[in-house]
Amino acid sequence: MSIATTPSPPYYAVIFTTVRTDVDKEYIEMANKMDELAKEQTGYLGHESAREELGITVSYWDSLESIKKWKQNTEHLFAQQKGREIWYDSYKTRICKVERDYGFEK
Amino acid sequence: MSIATTPSPPYYAVIFTTVRTDVDKEYIEMANKMDELAKEQTGYLGHESAREELGITVSYWDSLESIKKWKQNTEHLFAQQKGREIWYDSYKTRICKVERDYGFEK
Repeated sequence: MSIATTPSPPYYAVIFTTVRTDVDKEYIEMANKMDELAKEQTGYLGHESAREELGITVSYWDSLESIKKWKQNTEHLFAQQKGREIWYDSYKTRICKVERDYGFEK
Repeated sequence: MSIATTPSPPYYAVIFTTVRTDVDKEYIEMANKMDELAKEQTGYLGHESAREELGITVSYWDSLESIKKWKQNTEHLFAQQKGREIWYDSYKTRICKVERDYGFEK
């Protein structure tokens, strides 16, 4: 995984911060499946992910409309429900407009 | 570390995504020092952090003005310079307005 290559702002970010339960059953499979499915969605720009105590996944999108459609995707809705039932103790989702960005590379 | 407790939107987020070099010298000390220093700044609301291949740190702020002041803090400027010289191969900083959020807790 590398830093997402995103266009010039404005664009949108979904910050998804999670605390996992200790139930691993089918979690990795579902997480990978959702990563693949997200990439196929209209308006998907990229994503970044890391987990220690917290999991943080940031996905980038071209518009609020694309984010809304992804949230309502049937397979994704199923994964969200399983997430609440099985894999997550708690989570927070923040929908953001990226107003400015800058970077550094060696 | 737990999910940051943030007020109702709008508020601001700084998504700082990094790729580290293999130089650990003084990194942890400086990272901890910057965490502590950030907490003392006007307008700081909280932060979340995780590292695997990528490091992702999201800090939350009450305004763009608070973010700007933190960016220009003298000790933070010094840490930023050392980061580019020593600890980071690459990074991207994204300044965002959080427009909507929702969560889940068991």
